[in-house]
Amino acid sequence: MTESFDFKGRHIIDTEDLSTAEILHLVKTADDIQAMGDKALEIAKGKILATLFWEPSTRTRLSFEAAMFKLGGNVLGFSEASTTSSAKGETLADTIKTVALYADIIAMRNPLEGSAMAAARYSDRPIINGGDGAHLHPTQTLGDIYTLYKERGTLDGLKIGFLGDLLFGRTIHTLVRLLSRFDVEMHFFSPEGLNIPEYVRSSLQAKGAVFSESEDMNGQLAELDVLYVTRIQKERFFSEEEYLRKKNSYRVDRELLEKAKSDILILHPLPRNEEISQDVDDLPNAGYFRQAAYGMEMRMALISKCLGLM
Amino acid sequence: MTESFDFKGRHIIDTEDLSTAEILHLVKTADDIQAMGDKALEIAKGKILATLFWEPSTRTRLSFEAAMFKLGGNVLGFSEASTTSSAKGETLADTIKTVALYADIIAMRNPLEGSAMAAARYSDRPIINGGDGAHLHPTQTLGDIYTLYKERGTLDGLKIGFLGDLLFGRTIHTLVRLLSRFDVEMHFFSPEGLNIPEYVRSSLQAKGAVFSESEDMNGQLAELDVLYVTRIQKERFFSEEEYLRKKNSYRVDRELLEKAKSDILILHPLPRNEEISQDVDDLPNAGYFRQAAYGMEMRMALISKCLGLM
Amino acid sequence: MTESFDFKGRHIIDTEDLSTAEILHLVKTADDIQAMGDKALEIAKGKILATLFWEPSTRTRLSFEAAMFKLGGNVLGFSEASTTSSAKGETLADTIKTVALYADIIAMRNPLEGSAMAAARYSDRPIINGGDGAHLHPTQTLGDIYTLYKERGTLDGLKIGFLGDLLFGRTIHTLVRLLSRFDVEMHFFSPEGLNIPEYVRSSLQAKGAVFSESEDMNGQLAELDVLYVTRIQKERFFSEEEYLRKKNSYRVDRELLEKAKSDILILHPLPRNEEISQDVDDLPNAGYFRQAAYGMEMRMALISKCLGLM
Repeated sequence: MTESFDFKGRHIIDTEDLSTAEILHLVKTADDIQAMGDKALEIAKGKILATLFWEPSTRTRLSFEAAMFKLGGNVLGFSEASTTSSAKGETLADTIKTVALYADIIAMRNPLEGSAMAAARYSDRPIINGGDGAHLHPTQTLGDIYTLYKERGTLDGLKIGFLGDLLFGRTIHTLVRLLSRFDVEMHFFSPEGLNIPEYVRSSLQAKGAVFSESEDMNGQLAELDVLYVTRIQKERFFSEEEYLRKKNSYRVDRELLEKAKSDILILHPLPRNEEISQDVDDLPNAGYFRQAAYGMEMRMALISKCLGLM
Repeated sequence: MTESFDFKGRHIIDTEDLSTAEILHLVKTADDIQAMGDKALEIAKGKILATLFWEPSTRTRLSFEAAMFKLGGNVLGFSEASTTSSAKGETLADTIKTVALYADIIAMRNPLEGSAMAAARYSDRPIINGGDGAHLHPTQTLGDIYTLYKERGTLDGLKIGFLGDLLFGRTIHTLVRLLSRFDVEMHFFSPEGLNIPEYVRSSLQAKGAVFSESEDMNGQLAELDVLYVTRIQKERFFSEEEYLRKKNSYRVDRELLEKAKSDILILHPLPRNEEISQDVDDLPNAGYFRQAAYGMEMRMALISKCLGLM
Repeated sequence: MTESFDFKGRHIIDTEDLSTAEILHLVKTADDIQAMGDKALEIAKGKILATLFWEPSTRTRLSFEAAMFKLGGNVLGFSEASTTSSAKGETLADTIKTVALYADIIAMRNPLEGSAMAAARYSDRPIINGGDGAHLHPTQTLGDIYTLYKERGTLDGLKIGFLGDLLFGRTIHTLVRLLSRFDVEMHFFSPEGLNIPEYVRSSLQAKGAVFSESEDMNGQLAELDVLYVTRIQKERFFSEEEYLRKKNSYRVDRELLEKAKSDILILHPLPRNEEISQDVDDLPNAGYFRQAAYGMEMRMALISKCLGLM
């Protein structure tokens, strides 16, 4: 039994604005909506979602749009900046104020850090942050939490590894900070120079989180319940030589999984490049596509809650 | 009580094609639809609006799309020319004839003057002109008329000022000509060289309209009921020096409004640059965002009427 | 009475994968859906079509979107490659796997030959090939077959001419091969060097099809029931001189039609350039716009069948 919360009119800018109880309520709401089946098509009937994507992100945009359609609502918006009034010098404030007249709720992605928070100040319709630069991406993070619940039933006691570029991977930072509120162990595996940033490390220490950092998984792979893999770009390595020497340590394939628990769950925010071998896709451990589906379901919950419809 | 008119199958190309009684009927229809609340979602159920925007205009396009969704219909189309068959050398006639097979009604914006009228010749579905070059933009004009009714109850006796670039401002010319049919006084304030064009002046004189022209508002601001502000671009001024000297005369802020009637209504077709200070936005006088909402409501009326659904 | 077939979950990649009985069933289904009138709006209620167009094709995309809306469903997707994850190096497989989580059925156009077939391998949702390079375009072909049935009642005994560039015209090759299964006569009229390719000729011979090839229509125009015209590009001719000398032989106008049967049906896959004079458009013989409408109706049938809803 989770506590219930009214989200009507609320903006979703940063997961740090949400209490743990609120997050658990969103998880439960996502579940409840899925249980409704086709009746979910009545939830947002006649409502309009605007997807304002100044920075293209087909994946995130389509996820929001599918979420709204599955709630019975409609979608308008734009998928890149070039055709917008911003190109005519309009301020973000004016664009948001105008779109808020046409739509009931707004999902936005803008390359400028803090843009979603700024937009929220000017909008009397809920703003859902679909990514503001390298800063925040709360719907991805909440979708990841929902994934862990769906796949594991609970977060309690989970040992979660994070593999790859942990410095530039936006989604990792907010997820890690959010997970530090739960009873989990975190293990970070990254090449030298691509470790989690200091502000994340301090935050974890301040909260008394249990975590470790190392360059490779050798010692810990066998104990992990979940391995969260991130894209790692060749250019991030110190040298071509270092890249060639190390890249296999940050790549998941069937051979590597033989050293892991048989039911280890592999996650990845997608799109992937070569960090996960395609031969992993057919294993039940490959959770990354299910994760994308859970992300959409969490967006259904967020839209419903912020519109005051659930 | 207004007279009723059947618009089924009619094209909306130019406000000059509409009688005053027809315009009043559109105003009433817009009102009637709003009064229907959620029942408006049944009006255009199963109908399709095509938004064909060879020239990008996010604001106008989203307004049409929101209007159609609020009537329960669907929308397809394109938002820029680059991806269309026109790029393959197809004629406007063929594009229109084809889209008329897919959609029940077409809203179009094309940079070519007269393109909407040409399109209407080839379409057995209603064409709504969403702007053809610097020529006509009837849905903006009709939305402005609806705004005046909603904000003032009547147009009779209104003293309306127009401020800024009155030469290049497309929306102003059609609005002014339409207003000359009503019992209003019009006052034009523009820098030298950016006055209303001669054909508009002649038209007003021919109709016996009451109007004045001057470079500044000093003498008349206190008597205005409405001030319609337009974008004024730096490049339009004779020189940088002239721009710096004069720009404040064409900018509305709180200080200026102290010299005006306390309930003066400020309108602007949007997007704005710096002609209206953001500190005006929170005043009840700031009608420009409500004006955008009324524009969408008028588009709902036009779609409903031209489809023969109201 | 035609045999009925279950298409649920099936991909539509190539008309060669369909038996003649299956094609006749699709023709009948298209008819049945049109007979349903507004009740067709219930068929795909709550379902989502993804239109993934890596290569722009407004005409085909809008046809699919209109088809889905007329079935009561919704549409998401993209209309050009530049804004997609593919631009971030994502594989086709991953894009398809992700979109298959959001949508119930996928219509795609990709410039790479074989891409639709590859996509089908990765998708647990039906893939409809909306054109893969110069290779296959099955929904156009099936729409053309449906057009012949609607316009002529039967294909039996039809004498069909094909005019223009028969070498590069993608849509012709699949149509011709499909028609060779029926009791029709085919006559190919093309400039030297732009004849039907050898693999099509061999296929027709192997099936014992009745056909002829010539540079002009002179001898046979009077006997044709149908003339299928294709775009012919100036650059395809051997020389400018040859182009000027011959172009009129591959252009249909009223004068030419005086030498044909009075009820000859003129078809064209559109968009056209100058191969058909606009003065033909008003004749009842001009079937090319009706053909576009029938194409949309066939897409309604395909979507309904592949979703298992008809």
